[in-house]
Amino acid sequence: MSMSNNKEQQTPESLAERIIGGDRRALARAITLLENGAPQANRIVSLLHQNADLNKARFIGITGPPGAGKSTLSNALVTCLRKRGEKAALILVDPASPLTGGAILGDRLRLPGHSGDDGVFIRSMSNRGHLGGLSPTTAGVATLMQAAGFKRVIIETVGTGQAETEIAGLADTVVLVLVPGLGDDIQLMKAGIMEIADVFAVNKSDRDGAALLASELKMSQTVSSSDGFTPEVILTSALSGDGVDSLLDAIDRHYAHLEQSGLIKVTRKKRIQTQLNGALQGLFRNALAGIASEDLSQVNCQLEQCILDPYSAAETLWNLIIANGKGGK
Amino acid sequence: MSMSNNKEQQTPESLAERIIGGDRRALARAITLLENGAPQANRIVSLLHQNADLNKARFIGITGPPGAGKSTLSNALVTCLRKRGEKAALILVDPASPLTGGAILGDRLRLPGHSGDDGVFIRSMSNRGHLGGLSPTTAGVATLMQAAGFKRVIIETVGTGQAETEIAGLADTVVLVLVPGLGDDIQLMKAGIMEIADVFAVNKSDRDGAALLASELKMSQTVSSSDGFTPEVILTSALSGDGVDSLLDAIDRHYAHLEQSGLIKVTRKKRIQTQLNGALQGLFRNALAGIASEDLSQVNCQLEQCILDPYSAAETLWNLIIANGKGGK
Repeated sequence: MSMSNNKEQQTPESLAERIIGGDRRALARAITLLENGAPQANRIVSLLHQNADLNKARFIGITGPPGAGKSTLSNALVTCLRKRGEKAALILVDPASPLTGGAILGDRLRLPGHSGDDGVFIRSMSNRGHLGGLSPTTAGVATLMQAAGFKRVIIETVGTGQAETEIAGLADTVVLVLVPGLGDDIQLMKAGIMEIADVFAVNKSDRDGAALLASELKMSQTVSSSDGFTPEVILTSALSGDGVDSLLDAIDRHYAHLEQSGLIKVTRKKRIQTQLNGALQGLFRNALAGIASEDLSQVNCQLEQCILDPYSAAETLWNLIIANGKGGK
Repeated sequence: MSMSNNKEQQTPESLAERIIGGDRRALARAITLLENGAPQANRIVSLLHQNADLNKARFIGITGPPGAGKSTLSNALVTCLRKRGEKAALILVDPASPLTGGAILGDRLRLPGHSGDDGVFIRSMSNRGHLGGLSPTTAGVATLMQAAGFKRVIIETVGTGQAETEIAGLADTVVLVLVPGLGDDIQLMKAGIMEIADVFAVNKSDRDGAALLASELKMSQTVSSSDGFTPEVILTSALSGDGVDSLLDAIDRHYAHLEQSGLIKVTRKKRIQTQLNGALQGLFRNALAGIASEDLSQVNCQLEQCILDPYSAAETLWNLIIANGKGGK
């Protein structure tokens, strides 16, 4: 492959075309561009929205408290999908450490068993620098994977906080993974997390209390929710693989309900808003990054010397963003 | 009070002056302006930064998992501060429900015992619509309280997620509240939450396992952290009040360490960055809200009909923001 040929293939148009053709390297390249906030990344995603059939893909969110075994369960779902002959993409969102800025789960379970399998695409992302639980580019990365022909995109988030709110805006089906013995059932109910679950997975089903937790969850679900769907409760053991097939079936039943009831339109609409918000935040971030470094250091200098307060500094920076936008395009 | 007089008192300058004079109604009014994203709010906070002595106040963050008793403990700290003759302000950040958009803790413990006490100011805020755990206006509200003469501002956040990251950027001292029996100790360590704690409060100290949890925490702290400070572990019972005095002493010792080591400068710098980020996000939000409703509904309509993809829509909205900014001031 000549240099010029290689260069030509990096235009948004050619990358988009290659992604739609299922080219893994083009997919990986586009994901990196998106994560780095490269200006051509938005163009690629736009092209894919115009040219790829994105409506067939399903986003599955896997969430729950730390230690519930979400990574192992996500991996087991991928294995299960492969056995059924389906391609599967997996996004693992690592929480960033508040102090070091680095991803915490450097020791995150390296998912085994899928290397060399073209039907599997796994990407680990950090939510570094982001105010929420998901990375702001998660929605875009999921779209890229969809466009590359992955009809199932599993998005796994860590933490029992904001990530759940965001995953609910992105996924067709949210699986809330719980384990017995952490007391999380009651705690999560208090925190209003339960209501985002479309399917409950009671993982580590060999543990004492798993059956009890499952029946408590079922009891709490006896009154059907407003959309006429009662979330199923599935006992799983991600390590042994027990129940993972049933979990996948329950996910499919929820999706079928979305399609039959027409609620899929609401889900899609919500997802588009999430994608729009993510893209807007990305443009804002890029605009901030586009402020000339001498202007930025002047503001920082004045902030440190207390010549400028943070609120006036914000207005100065905002005016610079507007002026830059005015000058550009 | 005549209408015109009342109106005059609502200018940023007069509100700022009244806040510095300790006027509670002016403080409440400015907080509401800030929460509503009113343009004059930034001006008020700027004026306070210029005219009030904000360096004497201390921000204390109270965080930890749901059910740890943070509200009761925050209230007990306020009571304790009042006994010592200090004024205290308290900000309670409610998580917003992902689905309903409303604050979850409508049934949040109504803090008793401080009504009619001018030395106490309590404000409950929702983080609704925000991607992180804190409300984007929390930093501003805390500044308003500082300016009104509250030398201690206690900020309590719910959830074991992103809120902790943000509170670490805002508070001088972060108190991580844990309780025995939830298994949270190990879970939180895994999630990298432990490192933000300046003081640990093991609450509900009458419960089995409280002493064990405290000693485990102490063991995990034997190696001094990089700044030469080892977080203290305090057993508290927020309900009975046991240990709350000791907790306040430990908070003060941490603050003294910040001052003696000069680390207070780092804390202040971090806080200024947090305030700057919050103010920038506020300006961005206001700019979005400033897009004409006919433009917005056109974009939404095209989104729904899939004429426009979310990424192109984001660029359209961003260009409108730039054009509006160009037209304004």
